[in-house]
Amino acid sequence: MRDAYHEELDSIGDSLVEMARLVGSAMGRATTALLDADLALAESVIAADEKVNALHHDLENRAIDLLARQQPVATDLRIVVTSLRMSADLERCGDLARHVAKVARLRYPASAVPHDLHPIVLEMGQLAQRLVAKAGLVIATKDVDAALELERDDDAIDALHRELFAHLIDERWQHGIETGVDVTLVGRYYERFADHAVSVAKRVVYLVTGEHVDEFVASTDGAGPE
Amino acid sequence: MRDAYHEELDSIGDSLVEMARLVGSAMGRATTALLDADLALAESVIAADEKVNALHHDLENRAIDLLARQQPVATDLRIVVTSLRMSADLERCGDLARHVAKVARLRYPASAVPHDLHPIVLEMGQLAQRLVAKAGLVIATKDVDAALELERDDDAIDALHRELFAHLIDERWQHGIETGVDVTLVGRYYERFADHAVSVAKRVVYLVTGEHVDEFVASTDGAGPE
Repeated sequence: MRDAYHEELDSIGDSLVEMARLVGSAMGRATTALLDADLALAESVIAADEKVNALHHDLENRAIDLLARQQPVATDLRIVVTSLRMSADLERCGDLARHVAKVARLRYPASAVPHDLHPIVLEMGQLAQRLVAKAGLVIATKDVDAALELERDDDAIDALHRELFAHLIDERWQHGIETGVDVTLVGRYYERFADHAVSVAKRVVYLVTGEHVDEFVASTDGAGPE
Repeated sequence: MRDAYHEELDSIGDSLVEMARLVGSAMGRATTALLDADLALAESVIAADEKVNALHHDLENRAIDLLARQQPVATDLRIVVTSLRMSADLERCGDLARHVAKVARLRYPASAVPHDLHPIVLEMGQLAQRLVAKAGLVIATKDVDAALELERDDDAIDALHRELFAHLIDERWQHGIETGVDVTLVGRYYERFADHAVSVAKRVVYLVTGEHVDEFVASTDGAGPE
């Protein structure tokens, strides 16, 4: 029975890695759709989020089934409960990639992001994608050092987010309020995406070391323009 | 042992009701702080969020402890796992109230919201507070009819959110981009707060009836300007 248990636990880990891969790809494609005003690509990102949702629900059911059948305790129990939380984080990352794609779709055939802001948004998108790719790797390898690297990447995203806001509130802003609203929301989506990726990595650190990197990870996301 | 188990389960329910009460009060006070530019009130909301976070972490530990000691199955297991999710929803509501208070603090001594938008923002704040109060009641009473009412209130918030965006992108907007950014983010915070309150109620409906009100509750929040 214990072997079947650990096989099932490994398979839950595999699903988490697959979810991280899917949402990273989705955010990469959503960013391209946003900057290139590519409607077909935006639509494909929106449609593909169903697959992430399905994986999330399937993983939840398997985890609850595992709790009921195997009744794990101590570390094993924490792994299953933590997997549920990581799945919720990654499902939310999928939503946020979909939100970026929906902004792209809404403004098509224009790009929602003015050209002078393309480099910042591109870098935020690339960093977000890299963060969740590293989070997937951390799930697979339990590499605590790699997990701690995510904090630095998240600082870089926060710095870009501040830079984006500085452009928005600059008196020379010439792109109007509608574009300002789009850029505000898109910036927030990238930042939340990165927060969830960091949260996943921190949960792994806690499982491996028994120590919280930060007791209140889930409650310390930035509030935008601060 | 079963009696101790159900007592502990009740006590987890009580904590969820208390969290709902705290975050509802926090959002009401955050809205007042925002509209009145009341710095002291904003600071008190920001400080009080620690209590919600502490309740959330305490509840998580008690739920995991309950799983380990009592090893519930079937419905009992679902109740404990669902409580963990409701706690995460309510903790997030607390964050969002704190975010609104932080916008108030950032713009003090001015109000971050222009006077002509005060009625809309006030109504969003009141609805958000009412939604989470109802969610708390639903947790306490398991009243499915009350739970379904939350959907209607959430529709009302979404309508107000669209109205807010219509003002933002109106060519007669005269409040500048910085205020536009603030209003965009505040609108998003209320909307997400309401989504989490609805999510809590839907989880209770699922526990009581065994049927999902909506399979993908967590993944269908609005993406802002759509």
